[in-house]
This record gives sequence, C-alpha cells and structure tokens, in this order.
Amino acid sequence: MSEVLLMGPGPSPVSHRVRSAMARPLLGHLDPRFLAELDGLQADLRMVFESSAALTFPISGTGSAAMETAVVTLCRPGRRVLVLSCGVFGERIAAMVRRSGAELTLESFPFGTPVDPDIARRRMQEVAPHVVAVVQAETSTGVRSDVDAIAALAKEFGADLIVDAVTSLGGMPVHADTWDAAIVYSGSQKCLGAPPGLGPITVRDGLVQNQDETRSWYFDLGLISQYLGSERLYHHTAPISMIFALAEAMRDLREEGLAARFARHRKASAALRAGLDVLGLHSRVATADLLPSLTVVAPPKGLDETDLRRELLLAEGVEIAGGLGPWRGTAWRIGTMGEGARLQPVLRTVASIGRVLAHHGRAVAIPQAGSQAAKTWAETD
Amino acid sequence: MSEVLLMGPGPSPVSHRVRSAMARPLLGHLDPRFLAELDGLQADLRMVFESSAALTFPISGTGSAAMETAVVTLCRPGRRVLVLSCGVFGERIAAMVRRSGAELTLESFPFGTPVDPDIARRRMQEVAPHVVAVVQAETSTGVRSDVDAIAALAKEFGADLIVDAVTSLGGMPVHADTWDAAIVYSGSQKCLGAPPGLGPITVRDGLVQNQDETRSWYFDLGLISQYLGSERLYHHTAPISMIFALAEAMRDLREEGLAARFARHRKASAALRAGLDVLGLHSRVATADLLPSLTVVAPPKGLDETDLRRELLLAEGVEIAGGLGPWRGTAWRIGTMGEGARLQPVLRTVASIGRVLAHHGRAVAIPQAGSQAAKTWAETD
Repeated sequence: MSEVLLMGPGPSPVSHRVRSAMARPLLGHLDPRFLAELDGLQADLRMVFESSAALTFPISGTGSAAMETAVVTLCRPGRRVLVLSCGVFGERIAAMVRRSGAELTLESFPFGTPVDPDIARRRMQEVAPHVVAVVQAETSTGVRSDVDAIAALAKEFGADLIVDAVTSLGGMPVHADTWDAAIVYSGSQKCLGAPPGLGPITVRDGLVQNQDETRSWYFDLGLISQYLGSERLYHHTAPISMIFALAEAMRDLREEGLAARFARHRKASAALRAGLDVLGLHSRVATADLLPSLTVVAPPKGLDETDLRRELLLAEGVEIAGGLGPWRGTAWRIGTMGEGARLQPVLRTVASIGRVLAHHGRAVAIPQAGSQAAKTWAETD
Repeated sequence: MSEVLLMGPGPSPVSHRVRSAMARPLLGHLDPRFLAELDGLQADLRMVFESSAALTFPISGTGSAAMETAVVTLCRPGRRVLVLSCGVFGERIAAMVRRSGAELTLESFPFGTPVDPDIARRRMQEVAPHVVAVVQAETSTGVRSDVDAIAALAKEFGADLIVDAVTSLGGMPVHADTWDAAIVYSGSQKCLGAPPGLGPITVRDGLVQNQDETRSWYFDLGLISQYLGSERLYHHTAPISMIFALAEAMRDLREEGLAARFARHRKASAALRAGLDVLGLHSRVATADLLPSLTVVAPPKGLDETDLRRELLLAEGVEIAGGLGPWRGTAWRIGTMGEGARLQPVLRTVASIGRVLAHHGRAVAIPQAGSQAAKTWAETD
C-alpha cells in the first residue's frame, strides 16, 4: 500500500525521521538516558508553548486526555466555570466540566464564528467565574478565536484560564506566559508533526499544590510532577517510543525555528485556499478568523460528499475530513499541519480533488488551480 | 548506544519487527484500512483475554489508564467496592476507588503473599460488595493470586469482578469469560511485547449501558464503544502507530500460540531463578505463588543495591528494577516477559549480574549459574 497523504485535521503527515525514532530500541522509563531525552523534550515544549513553567510535558494520552487533565485539575464542585465555545471542541470541554461537578456556564457562539470578546466580558461580569476555558483553533470549523483578548479578560476578572491549543501549537503563536494561562494543552498529531498519542501540556508554576482533590489518579498533575521532578518517583510507565517520536519532531521544529514554521503554515493555507477557490470550493470562514493550520470549505453541491472523499482517499491516496456536528455533510476540513504545511502536499491535494471532481463530471481547471496555489504560496509572507 | 536488555518489570524488550511496525506511514483513524487493522487487533485481544466480549480493545493510555477506566466504569458514590490487595498495584486500585466516591473496603494482605480466598470470603460476607477488584500478578512483589477462587466468590456474592492482568496477560492464562469478569485489563509493555502506551481491556457484554454517569469523558466506555462499533463515531484520535505496534505483537503471539507462549514464560522464569540461586540471590516469594513473568529476589547483603543496578545498566546494558513500597531497597524485580522470556536474555542477565557481583568482590560461580539456568530451561515443562 502506498503512503496516504494525511491532509485531514490530524493526524498530519509524519516524517520518515520521526517515524524512525519510534523504531529505536526502547529504554526503561527510569533510565538516565531516557530521562535526559524527556528533559530535552520538556525544554522544547516550553519553547513552542512560550512557557517558562516547570510542569510542561506530554500527557500519556491524546489531546483529549490533556483536555481532561486540565478540567480535572481546575474544575470541581463549588467552582464556577465559563466555557466560551464556538464548535465541537468547546462543547467537549463543557461536557467534561459537566462531569467534574463544577458549576458550568456554557456560552456557545454560532458555528463558523469565533468567540466574541464583548459577549465574553458580559458573561464574566454575570458569572464571576473561577475558571474560563477557550479553544484557540477550533478543529470543527477552522476558526481562530482571539485568545489575547480572552486572556486579558480572564486576568481582569481573576479567573484561571484554560486554552485548548490542539490545532494551533506549532502552527501559529501560542503565548502561555504572556496570557498568564493556568493550563494550555495540545496534541502531538497536528502541527507538531508526530503521531497521535501524546497531549503536550503546560501548567503555570504554583498552580498544582494539593492534588488530592482531583478525581482522576491517572491525570493527577501533583503525582505526575513527582516523576518529572528530581525525585523521579514512579507514577505510570511513560510511553517511551511515542516520547522518542515527539522529541524528534520537536528537534525538527527547533532547527526550523518558530517564525519560519509559522510562515510555512500561513503560506500553505493561503496556497490551499487559492487552489480550492479555482476549483469552486470556497472557505466557510471569514478572512479575519482563518486558521493557518486548517481550511474549511463547502463541498461541491449536488454530489455525495462522502463518496467524493472516499474516492479521494482510495483512488488518489489523499485523506481529508468531512464536517462535524451541525456542519456534518456541509463542510470539508483540510489540514495544512506540520509536514502537510508545504507546497508539494498542497499542490497534490488540490490536483487530486480536481481529478475527483472531473471524474464526477465537473468542469474544473486543475492546472490553473495548481498555478494559483503556487503563486499564492510564493506571495504569502 | 547499544541496545539495553530490558529485564525489569516492564517495559520488556520489543522485537525489531514490532518496532518497525511503528515506523510505518500513518493512516487516518477513520481510514477503512486502519479500522480493519484495529478489528484484527480486537480479535487477537479476545483470544489472549479468553473473552468473547465485543468491547475488547486497547485504551489510549498505559495500563494505569486501563485501571482507571475500570474504576470509573464500575465505582461511584453509593456502591460498595472491596479491593483485595497484596501490593502496590492493589493499593493503586484502592486509591482510584477512593477518588471515585464509592464506599471502599481495602483488604490488604502482607507484602509477598497472595490474596487469601478464605479471608476474601469473610470480607465479602461482611461488606456485600457491588464490586470486587483483584490483581492477578502483583508487579511490586512477583506474587500471583488465585483469580479462579476469587472469581467464584464474586459470582457467589453477586459482585462485579475487576481483574488487573497487567503483568499476566500473554504470559500466563487469563480467563475473562470463565471468570465472568466485569472488566479485565492489562498493559502493552509486559508479556505482550509491545512498547508502553496502550492498556488492553475487555468489558463483559451488557455491562456498559448508560455511561453518562461516569466521571471521566476520556475513559467513557459508552462513548468509545460508538467508535469501535459500526457507527465509527469519532471519540478521540486513536494512537495509530502504537496500535500498529500492538497489532504486530499480537500477530506474533497468535502465530506462536498461547500454550507455547505460556510454556516459554514458565521455562524462562524457572531458568532465571535457578541461575540466580547459584549466585546466592534467592526468591522472596513462596514456590506456590511464583509468577512466570516476574521474579523477585533479595539483593546481595552488604552492598548498595542501587549502585549495583546502575552498574548493571550502564556497564552491562541490562536493566532490572528495585523494590517498591515496603520492599524498597530489599528487592530486585527481574522480568521474564514477552521477548525477555527466552533462554538467551536470561543467560545474559544471569551472567551480567554475576560479573557485577564479582566486580564488587563477591565470589560467584558465573559459568555454573549459567549452566544451571540452561539445564532448568530444558527440564521445565
């Protein structure tokens, strides 16, 4: 089977170098050489989170596991939690908060729009929340929310801020320190370019003290910090091979540099949108709210969009995703994340979609779509 | 760096074939070819759990994550839970039950001894538990408990049974169906021979109905079953590469066959004990309670055991583990798990320990220890 080009909203393509790191012979989770590798990974994660926090590491689970860690750490009965949601992943945070026993206020903004800071301010005035949660890059809609503004509000109202950076970390700026965020988390399989299975997280210094109150043992940051700290107290067996992979992916990122990395994501998403526009597939998101890592377009009218995606996957070897929630059936989600945020995979994706449309009788200008994508790539800053 | 021989209580050695599976190009978590791979893995897990349960799959986290899944599924306020503990991992279940809000009764048996079914029966009479939890192979002491007997008692008293098979699955018989266990779980990095990061679990048919009550979203079996079932409803992004690895390890196991696999573990542990005996390192566990996957001996008196283990790791490239809990400093835990349960790694471990002891001035008969180990391997059934 030839390699599938993963252009959905994650998992993103993983380089041969990163995959090879997983094939390395294992080390024990208390081996000093493994601990040195883990220390290096933690330092690299601090760089990409723009965080100085000691407790910056990968949760041994996926991005949703990191989300649950944030929720069980900060939300419990008696605490008021305001979730500012504009999509499925904001709703997911709310579902977890509901289970935590905390007092949830869910403010949902329309699908395809970002969190409105003015409305957020009014809700904070009404609710006086202990905790505010927001998704920086909503994976269900391809919309970015203005976390700078929300973070300023959280600070003004004295609330602990949770930021979901699953689809943003490594693809656009994340400012954990500047935001003074309590917890920011992400996933390994998006813009970081590693396989799914780890949930990077950064936890503001001093936030975790007495963790006996958390409902989860596995996600108990107090216990985990004793393994990461100088005591090296065993908590659970670290997922060694996955940590090798993420450490390798982070070395790639460090060598490239954050600024170059972010520029590459901007160029790739602009090129993708330009190419798709020529094919008649237009963004469902307003220009000001676009993400550099994920493009969401309306699928072609009059054709079964799941059939088209299946043909794209099986005949062209290119994976993209359909819509979630209210956009099921009316959206295509196409990622430009990590190794996918390069001109070649973007051109291949545009051409493949074009061929599938042509195969279904649509008159599309595939070469023109490609040249428009390449031109836009070159012209984007 | 040359390869470390992992002879601690996990992670165990991972074959080149299994590690190479992790280097495969990724597939999406909804790609039909990935789902076919996952289906095959589920079937193989049913074989090794001896389970017919539909909901048999790997939790996206380590063995402790699978433990937490079992606890959040079955334990909640108003339910009486009896934990039969004979070591650190029994205590860990109790710690999780405590956080669940259920009414915990913890019956702890002395370190180095198994659960006593007579005492278990008396406690069940007193407590009338809704749930009983027991560890089949206690990783902190190397002791096996008689789950057949405990399962019969749980059935008699109408309690749901949780079995921790982390250090047993794939190395000795696990009878999920025969036990009529509610949940049995394990870890990928022990006798199954895959890297750490997945927690195989099997859940009795009909057990999971309305999961809205669970406190954990990530470990909600009701939600996860919708992804594993025909709906293929997205829950979280499956850890693709880890699943490739475990699927490959399970194919190895299927080809070898359970009976041959278990025999290999018995032979390896017997050989290891015979070799260590010659070196003057004797088992801390009574013969009737020995595990085929883990041998626990008293370290040599009069020497710093952590220094010896460090030298063993850094000079000889062999990793073993020290004691946990009350046995910290007074136990060495040496695994014969998965790829480690073969004559060659056992002989290398015995010889390496012998050389480290000789280096520290002990008069030890290394060749004799090796030949005794080989002889015992050949003679063990």
